[in-house]
Parts: sequence; C-alpha cells; structure tokens
Amino acid sequence: MSGEIFPPATNRPTFSANRWKQPQKIALEEAITTSVFNSTTTLPPVRGGAELPYVNTDYVTDVKNRLSNVELRVQAMDEAGIALTVVSLTMPGIEGIFDPATAVETARKVNDETHKLYCTGKYADRFRAFGCVAMQDPKAAAVEAERCIKELGFVGILINGYSQIGDSETVQYLDEPQCEPFWAKLEELDVPLYLHPRIPTLGQMRVYRGYEFLAGSPWGFGVETATHSIRLMVSGLFDRHPKLKVILGHCGEGLPFSLARIDHRMRHFQPQHYQCKLRMQQYWDRNFWITTAGVTSDQSFTDTLRSCGEDRLMWSVDYPYEDYDETGKWFEQLEMSENTRSKIGWENARRVLRLD
Amino acid sequence: MSGEIFPPATNRPTFSANRWKQPQKIALEEAITTSVFNSTTTLPPVRGGAELPYVNTDYVTDVKNRLSNVELRVQAMDEAGIALTVVSLTMPGIEGIFDPATAVETARKVNDETHKLYCTGKYADRFRAFGCVAMQDPKAAAVEAERCIKELGFVGILINGYSQIGDSETVQYLDEPQCEPFWAKLEELDVPLYLHPRIPTLGQMRVYRGYEFLAGSPWGFGVETATHSIRLMVSGLFDRHPKLKVILGHCGEGLPFSLARIDHRMRHFQPQHYQCKLRMQQYWDRNFWITTAGVTSDQSFTDTLRSCGEDRLMWSVDYPYEDYDETGKWFEQLEMSENTRSKIGWENARRVLRLD
Amino acid sequence: MSGEIFPPATNRPTFSANRWKQPQKIALEEAITTSVFNSTTTLPPVRGGAELPYVNTDYVTDVKNRLSNVELRVQAMDEAGIALTVVSLTMPGIEGIFDPATAVETARKVNDETHKLYCTGKYADRFRAFGCVAMQDPKAAAVEAERCIKELGFVGILINGYSQIGDSETVQYLDEPQCEPFWAKLEELDVPLYLHPRIPTLGQMRVYRGYEFLAGSPWGFGVETATHSIRLMVSGLFDRHPKLKVILGHCGEGLPFSLARIDHRMRHFQPQHYQCKLRMQQYWDRNFWITTAGVTSDQSFTDTLRSCGEDRLMWSVDYPYEDYDETGKWFEQLEMSENTRSKIGWENARRVLRLD
Amino acid sequence: MSGEIFPPATNRPTFSANRWKQPQKIALEEAITTSVFNSTTTLPPVRGGAELPYVNTDYVTDVKNRLSNVELRVQAMDEAGIALTVVSLTMPGIEGIFDPATAVETARKVNDETHKLYCTGKYADRFRAFGCVAMQDPKAAAVEAERCIKELGFVGILINGYSQIGDSETVQYLDEPQCEPFWAKLEELDVPLYLHPRIPTLGQMRVYRGYEFLAGSPWGFGVETATHSIRLMVSGLFDRHPKLKVILGHCGEGLPFSLARIDHRMRHFQPQHYQCKLRMQQYWDRNFWITTAGVTSDQSFTDTLRSCGEDRLMWSVDYPYEDYDETGKWFEQLEMSENTRSKIGWENARRVLRLD
Repeated sequence: MSGEIFPPATNRPTFSANRWKQPQKIALEEAITTSVFNSTTTLPPVRGGAELPYVNTDYVTDVKNRLSNVELRVQAMDEAGIALTVVSLTMPGIEGIFDPATAVETARKVNDETHKLYCTGKYADRFRAFGCVAMQDPKAAAVEAERCIKELGFVGILINGYSQIGDSETVQYLDEPQCEPFWAKLEELDVPLYLHPRIPTLGQMRVYRGYEFLAGSPWGFGVETATHSIRLMVSGLFDRHPKLKVILGHCGEGLPFSLARIDHRMRHFQPQHYQCKLRMQQYWDRNFWITTAGVTSDQSFTDTLRSCGEDRLMWSVDYPYEDYDETGKWFEQLEMSENTRSKIGWENARRVLRLD
Repeated sequence: MSGEIFPPATNRPTFSANRWKQPQKIALEEAITTSVFNSTTTLPPVRGGAELPYVNTDYVTDVKNRLSNVELRVQAMDEAGIALTVVSLTMPGIEGIFDPATAVETARKVNDETHKLYCTGKYADRFRAFGCVAMQDPKAAAVEAERCIKELGFVGILINGYSQIGDSETVQYLDEPQCEPFWAKLEELDVPLYLHPRIPTLGQMRVYRGYEFLAGSPWGFGVETATHSIRLMVSGLFDRHPKLKVILGHCGEGLPFSLARIDHRMRHFQPQHYQCKLRMQQYWDRNFWITTAGVTSDQSFTDTLRSCGEDRLMWSVDYPYEDYDETGKWFEQLEMSENTRSKIGWENARRVLRLD
Repeated sequence: MSGEIFPPATNRPTFSANRWKQPQKIALEEAITTSVFNSTTTLPPVRGGAELPYVNTDYVTDVKNRLSNVELRVQAMDEAGIALTVVSLTMPGIEGIFDPATAVETARKVNDETHKLYCTGKYADRFRAFGCVAMQDPKAAAVEAERCIKELGFVGILINGYSQIGDSETVQYLDEPQCEPFWAKLEELDVPLYLHPRIPTLGQMRVYRGYEFLAGSPWGFGVETATHSIRLMVSGLFDRHPKLKVILGHCGEGLPFSLARIDHRMRHFQPQHYQCKLRMQQYWDRNFWITTAGVTSDQSFTDTLRSCGEDRLMWSVDYPYEDYDETGKWFEQLEMSENTRSKIGWENARRVLRLD
Repeated sequence: MSGEIFPPATNRPTFSANRWKQPQKIALEEAITTSVFNSTTTLPPVRGGAELPYVNTDYVTDVKNRLSNVELRVQAMDEAGIALTVVSLTMPGIEGIFDPATAVETARKVNDETHKLYCTGKYADRFRAFGCVAMQDPKAAAVEAERCIKELGFVGILINGYSQIGDSETVQYLDEPQCEPFWAKLEELDVPLYLHPRIPTLGQMRVYRGYEFLAGSPWGFGVETATHSIRLMVSGLFDRHPKLKVILGHCGEGLPFSLARIDHRMRHFQPQHYQCKLRMQQYWDRNFWITTAGVTSDQSFTDTLRSCGEDRLMWSVDYPYEDYDETGKWFEQLEMSENTRSKIGWENARRVLRLD
C-alpha cells in the first residue's frame, strides 16, 4: 500500500484525505439491456406495470442510455476504480415473458448477445456476465444455465424474482417443486444464483394501492425479494441441495435486521410444520452471499457485515440505476480493516465467481 | 444508584454481574383479551385466518391463560422489575370485525371492561390502557377515542393495522381520506396512536402461498406494518396534522434499516407525484416513537437507537407472546449510558403518555 | 428542514448528496493565542518541551497564522456553517508558567485580551470564550474564574491538564486537595471546566523515550488526559461536588472504549481503598460532557455516543490544528436521527453553556 | 449445527435461549505460575510493586489457587466449553528478574516445568504453551525461543512488556536495537509473540501518584501495552521483519479506538522523522492479531472486530483473573454470523498457532 497518493481534503497544507482509490474493485449487480427485446417491461406489457410516471425524466433518459452504452460504462468504471463488472439483463427481463417458449428462445438470444458485446473484443478483460434463463420452463432453464457456464464462460445465473407464466398474475416462486431440475443443475455446475429484486405484480400489491410507486422503490423490491429468500429457506431447498449459492443484493434486502427475530420467534413453532431442518441463520451462513448493491448507508452496511461475516459480503453498485463513483467513494471511506475492505471490494467476488 | 446489589455472575468470589434490576420499567405493547369477544380471531372467523397449526400447543395454552390472568401478569411484572404496563386489546381485535355497527359497539364494551379490570381496584397503579376504536366508522372512532381519553383516562389509542369492512378482503388503511375525522381528533387530544402489526389477509398474501405461517411470523407482521407506516408518510397525513404521534413496535418494523435507502432513492422521483412535503427521515424524526416490543437483538436495537434517537425509543415486551423477564434482562445488560437507559426504560414513556 | 438545497453528488441528473450544510453549528475546543505571551511553550521554555521537529513546517506556519487571525477564522466558520465558536488559550497556556505569581497575572491579562478581541466589536455574536486560570494558586484561580464568568461573560473555564509549579517536573493534578477552593467556586458558578489535553513532561514520559513525538500526538495527549479524568473520579471530587461539569474533548480521550472494562475489573477491588462512592460509569453519566474535537472517526463517534448518550456529546473541531470544513462535513454526513444531530451539533452546547 | 440443545431461557414452555455452548473454544491468554519462582512479583521484590492492598482477599486467594491447580482448570474449561487452553507464565514473570543470568536460567526452568505439567500426561490434549524468555539477554532469548518451539513444541512466546535490567527503573522496550536477534529468530521460527501487559514501574507512573491502583487496573495495563505496541510500529521493526506476528490481548489495549485518529494526525508530521514506512493501520492489518482476553464489553468487541477484521480476532479469557464461564457465555450470546464466531472462537487460533 506504500506509495499511494491521498487526495487533498481541504486547501490547507498537509490536510490530505484518509482514503485512496482502490482500482481493483469488482461490481456484481450491474444492469444492461440488449437489442433483443425491451427488457425493462413485461412481454406483453401490462398497463401500469412498467410505467414509472413518478421517476424524473432526465434520470430515466440517462439511465436508458447507460444501460446499453459500453464505452460510457467503461469510462465510468475507470473513474471509479472498478476493474471488473459482472453484467446481467435488467429487471423484469426473461421472468416477465408470459409465454414459456418465447422466454426460452429469448434467454438464449440475450445470452448470446451479452457474450458478444461484453465478453469478447476490446473490453473482454473488464466484463463477466450472469446468464439469464427461462424459469417458465425449468428444464430448459437448466439446459441454458449449463450452456451459459460451459460454453459462454458466464460466472453464474441471475433471476429477477418470480416468473410470470401465461399471464401477469400467475406467478411461480423458485421454491416450487417444478424448479428442482434447475437447482440440481446449478448445484452441479457449482455457480451462484443472483436473486435480483422484482416489483410485485399489480394484483399482488393491495397494500400499495394508491401508492404503487412504493412497490417500485427499494421498499417494495426489498420486501418481495426478502420474502422470496425466506421461502427458499423454509422450503427445505437447501437441505436437498446444501451446496447451492444464492447471492442477494441491497445488503440482504433487509434480512440482517430481521433474521435474528425470526429465528427467535420460531422457538414457539412446531418443527414438523416446516420443510426445513436448520435455523434461518444457518442457511444464511452457509448458502447466501450478499452484495451492497444500491446501498450507501453506513448503518445498513455495518449490520450486514455483522450478520453475514466478511467472507460473504461483496461491494456492488446497481449501475446505471446507481452511480459507480458515488458508491465507490462511499465504500472507500468506510472505516474497517483494509483486509476486510479487500475481501468485500474484490476478493470475495473473485473466489465465489472463480475469477482467477 | 449507590447501594444497589448486583447479582453474582459466577460462583467465584467477587464475580458479580454488571447489571442490576431496574424496577421502574414501563412496558407499552402488552396484549390482553376480554370476555366481550374472542379478540384473537376475526368476526366472523375466516377459515385459515386465525388458525395457527404451526404454533406449539403448550405455548398457545400458556399465552391464552396469560392474556386474561391479571394476577399472573402482576407477578411476572414484579419479577421482571416492571412498574407499569400499558395494556391493549390483542390482534386482530376490533379491526377484524366486518360489521361496522358491531365494531363500534364492541369497541365501547371492550374499553369499559378494560377500564374496570385494569384501571380500577387493587392494581390500578400498575396499569394504564390504550383504547380500541372502530375504524370501520371513523367518526365513531373519533367519538370513542375522546371518551377513552377524557372519561376513562386511557393514555392513547392502539390500532391493529388495516380494518376489514364488510368482508375479509375489503380493507381500509389509515391514510385513506375517510379516516380524517379520527386523525383530527387524535391531534386535538394530543395522544399517540400505537400502530400495531396485523397479519395480511389470506387474499393479500400471494407471496406467502404455501408458507402462510411466514405471514404470521414477525416477518409478515413487520412488512405489513412498515408498509402501512410508509403509506401514512407519503399520504401527506403528517403535513395536514404535524402534531400527530404514532408509536411503532418491534424496533420500527425494519424501517431503521431501510429508511435511508428509500430517501436516497427518492432523489430520482418527481416531487409532484407525492402527496408529502418532507423526506421520510423528517417524518420519522417528528411524528414517530418506537418501541422494542418483541425484539431482543442487540444489532436491531443499535440501529433503531441511531435512527430515532434516544428520546423516541421505548423498551417494551409484547407480553404474553414474549416474556417480561427475558426481555427485561436483555435490556438491562445492553451497554449504554445509564441516562439513555432510563429514557428508553421509562422516562420517554412517561413523557409521551403524560404519566406524571 | 423543508426547502434545503442538497449539493450534487455526481454530474449525473438528480444524483444529489444526502447531506446539507447546517449553519447553526457550535464549536467548543477552538484554540487561540494572544499577544500577552507565547502560549505554545512553557515559561520558561524547556528544551525539547515545545519543539516539534517532526511537524510539517507548512502546517505549523498555517496553524500559527490561524491561531490569532480573527478574520480568517470567521471566514472559515462561514464556509463550514459554524454559527458560534468558543475560543480558549492554546496548550500549554497558563498551566506551563512555572512561577505562580506570573501565572496569576498572565491569566488575568490573557482573559482581558481574549474578551476584547473576541467578545466585543464586529464579531461579538460569533464568539464566546472559556477563561484561563492559574491553578498554581488555586485560590487566585477561583477569584479569576468568578471574574471571567461574572464580569467578562465567559461561558466556562478551560484548563490544559496538570500545572507545573516551580519547575518543569513538579506537577499538580486537579484532584489534589489544594485545588478544592477552585472546584467549590466552579460548582457555585455552575459553569463547566473544559479539561484540555496536555503533553506529558519530559521527565514523565519514559515510555515514549526515543519516540517523544508520540507523546505529542493524539496518543500521548489522550492517555494523559484520560488518566487525569479517572483521577478526578476516584478521588471523590464528584462526591464532594456532585454538580460539577467537566467537558472532555476528543471523544472522551479513549474512555468510552475502556470505561466498561474498568468498572468490570473494580468488582474485585476493596471499596474501602477508594475515595469515591460510585462506579466510573455513574460519574461519567452525571458529571461529564464530551466533545468530538479532533476526531473524524465514525467508529469512535459511535462508541462515544453510546457511552455518554446524545444529551452530553457535542461536536467540535480543534481549529486551527484541525479544519472547520473537513470536520463539519464529516459530522453532517454521519447517519443518525436529525434530532440527535441537532443536539450534538448545537443544542447541547447552548444548554450546558447557557447560551440562550 | 442441527440437533443442538438450547437451554431454557425462562420457565415458560418453548422459551429456549438463543445460544448454545460451543465446546471447541480455544483460550490464549491464560496465566499459570510455577514452583520455580514466585512469578507474581519482581525479583528482587520492589516495595509497593506487587502489593495490591486494594484487591479483595477472597479473590486473591481464589486466583492464586487457580494459577497452579490443573485439575480445577480443566474442570472449569469443561464447564465453559473450552477445548484447549494456551498457558503462559503470569505477570511480571521473567521480565521482572533484574539479574540477566538469573533471568536466563529461570526462563529455561519455567519452560521445562510448564512443558511437564501441561504438555505431557493426562491433559496433554487440553493444553499448549507460550514459552517465556529473558529479554534481559536478547541473544539468550533467541536461543530459548528456538528451544521452546523446536524441542518443547510450544506455539509461541509471551512477553510481559518491558524488561527490568539491573534495577527496577532501568527498563528495556522491545523495539530497542539490542532486541534484534530475538526478533530475527522469531521471524525465522514463524511463531507469534504475545505481548502481554505490564504494570508501569513505580518510578514511571507519576501520573498515577496517589492512585497507584489505577496503574494496576486495566487502565494502566492497557496504556502501557498500547504505547509499547505503537513503539514497535514506529520503530520500523515491521519493515525490517515484515512477517512478524504480534498478538495483543484486551481487544487491542484500546488501540482500535485511537488508531484512525493517530493516522489522521500523522498527515501533518514529517515522514523523515519516522523510522517506519507504512501507516499504523497497515502494520495493524499485517502484523497484529488481537484477543478479547479480559473484555466482556459488546462495544469494545464491535470496535475491535471492525478494526482488525474477523481473521485476526481471537476470543480469550485471562483466567484465572477472569472467569472461563462468564467470558464464554458472553461470547456465545454476541450477535454475529456463526462463521465469524467459529473463526474468533477457535479457527483463527488454530491457524496462527499451527494447531492442526
């Protein structure tokens, strides 16, 4: 670390900042879109589902440009000290294609395009990718997952929450029995699944009625994804497949705050009514990895680090919805051992994604 | 504090514990039931709604006994060093009575019985009460709230989340326009509303399908109540009634973990699409008080204290679902200034409930 | 808080920072020197005592200028959003004058000059002052303290640790019996004593031999001042004068990290060998106020806040040794309730110094 | 972890505790004395040096018994779930023998006796040992260190701070040039040095005058040892021997609270006046391991964990001065990932001490 230059903190002599830019950083929850289909809406589009009238139009324009502008992304990575970005198709993605056959075909096309755009050519050393799959057809998803890893060199699979099958309101969660072939394949491939948030369907979100934008804010995303994660735990999935690796973003979607209380409450429940054998904290410790994507709160970071330990927490951004540089600076000034920072900044990602 | 006796921590000489029992404690989210109606189920009962097959039967038997056993409660309070308990009708309570007229009448009867059982006689100095109201008829709720405070000497009102009107699935949240007369009265009376959790209706909880017990765990309760609280904030309620006081239990139902991120995200939203004028944190700081009811997690406590400050956090238990003594000991051994502990343990409650 | 403008965090649309400048801030440990004597060295100067060959000369030049440049100070206060600064004579100050009579006379002159320069004229509304006294003559110190408060309108007294009497190595700590008249007067006046750090004498610092600069770093300052504070506690001073108010800077000089352990250890000691009646934490809670002067560590801040509570912690800078703006920005971006921030930023200072 | 039995937390049905006893724990700062010499005083004894009139006599009697009672120790280990204890000669030990030749001879005898009593026979699988050396003769210390590791199978060396040479007040710190042969040998052997606290000499502790017991409390121990550690860092020792491993007890002797501030302050110092090349935090991250010995403060633990990361923090007790069971229970109920707890509880010790 010797020799690093610290930027000045004030215009007074010797008042240097106590942070330095760490150019080895790796970011994992980084969205792209492709020319194959408009991945920011369901297919067919549902009225109200993807309309975000409450979002600033300048912000939307900027985000849309950045979702597909590779040059601008690399430039922003350079400025923020990011060595490598793992890209993935943005929400709702394949999960929002109601027709299973279309979903299967589209996933394949998107993966091919992602591979071509990011994993070959000029910037191939700056990008890796999570593949997408069509959980509307779990067996096909298993096949495509294998192709992603073995043929395209992708580092894992990313799924945007529940899948819609046939229509907007018929949804499938990943713990449902028909998803087994996919999970078995994932365990065999020994690669992680990134469980990305998804906005609840219009039909599901009675509690948001009148304030649907709350469902499309971090609040709604977090609740949906955290609940989905708890489903996975109590379903016994991780008893059947103890080597599965699930990555959650957004500092664990609020679970670090609540996990202890859930386990504490479950003292009073009948074990035989569960399909799982361990406590929540035990699955959390064994099967989950967490990223900080979307978070710049010191308190939430502190909680999450304590809850999952420094070997399973990974810094990320959620670009272009969030900003590489703002999020990078936040991380670099957080107080912690530099050993811990290296793990969270890039070493854990290198290990769990087998980047070396 | 001089002269206090510390219990021994080990059987070795001079190894005393570093905690002492503080007999001044006040507990605020403490459930009772009454003879007036079976407050632990909706009226009429909905199949699956109140059946909790996953809960240990010994636990249920014990809890049911304690919900109405005053002597046993006082004895448990003595053992745990609790000077005063503020009782309230347990969930779902009045909010689960589908017929408005019945709800209005029942609320009145329950309040009278609560007053008689807890606020008069032998243990009158050990109890205060939150009144219940029928939000199915907001004007009647305002009338009953006034009676509770002015005639019965109650210290506030407690509402179990949404109200069901007419049937199980037709629900009303407290930010809806027809609730205005109730809020106006509450502001005039200058007493707090305790917003207690409620399990989502069967129809609302698609995300829990197959694992309905999750909705009845702290997780489902917390999500429902936190979302309800955010509704209140974004509705502009606290702009119209800036002096309202809302109390949340369970360390703020997870909001301390998420509030910073919501505010951070709302940078990108159009202000004109909101009905509120301030940031979430500003309402949080001005209109909310928090209790620790149901929580014995140091991390969650730490987060909550940082988020709401030491003047708005109040220790509580959630008896008989939780245990007075276990929760009291947890609180007494938490590291903090004794000034802070006194505030959280009893002083804040005395002030916000005007107990002196 | 409505209407505040947040500065941009990045050059992307709507990415505003989540902090705003709070112009009401008050700073309490802010050093000045005067024309009366060279307060940055002992009198007579001791070889090696005030020579700081290890400090950057540009830094020293800048600091010396700022110690007496009122205009530059006000400009820096404006830029950092500081409404009011409480100034005090810099270390070693009066405490380093070996001759008691000279010390008494100099204290009086310095106070008069401080009053004239900071408490009258153009910037009178931007400054308050802590007086200096000559503890080499405690009765004279009591007289001068009274004059400072009653005639000059000062808000308290600041003492730089031990006093040297007669020569460099004959030192007096504030718990020694001859200091009683001073403490009695301070309690009567009901104003705080700011106990400011002091570098150990050359003769005292065997443990620093070969690395004397460590004694002049925050480390040596903190150890000396923390030990001095513990002396005050165990001496029984606060039993005799329970209303005394002592302010410590630098997040309590490390005591928040160690206080619990000291109390825990003292279980095994014989009470009769102490002159004090209470536990350390109890004096800490009743007789001490803490500032953050010199600290920009989130962890240390967090510990200190938990240890002393939000009513006794006050933000400060240690200008010109530290920087108003750097320290102000650090404080404004720390995550906490805005109620807590207001207390720490200015409300606690207003109350303990009776500024209203 | 499945199948573990949680003890009941209350006498109510299903209210089990949320901790379980972890019988794999390893404790590292665990004192013994031997028949060879009275290791709890200097040799020759200095008046006032080892007299502890302020310590409860029942406590002293109990501690003295436990310092040499192996059976009682094993029984206490069993009760607290401690698989392995690393024993070491208690303070002041060899460092307090004024005559170098006697020190050298005594160290050898003590090591032999320690080996015989703890590392052979009935409980050989329950104990390991840190050797003692006579730093009054650094070359002899190097020789004895090698014998300890290679012949006796000890896992490292423990030194009680400074050494007294010739008389009570002539002390040597470990960064002094004559200690080089010892450090070179330690680096070659690749075993850690445990730097244990020592009470300052009577002559050194002017700041404690009148309250000498403070020097013998955790406060005086911590200050002395932390300052000694900083000496090692700024001396350039770790630049010359970058692979050295130093273990500090007591949550790093307060350094986690102060390290950031020291580095922050050193911005203003002239680099050429130092003998070291890196920042304090960098040596901390590379050359130091920390134990919790003597600490049962959640706040101090939290700070230390954040400061040194979960790979370098190790639970310990400081038996018999502290209690195995009290300290073990404290550790087991701290909230953290079970992965982190396993590392701190035993895995880190196994790795750094090469126990596998």
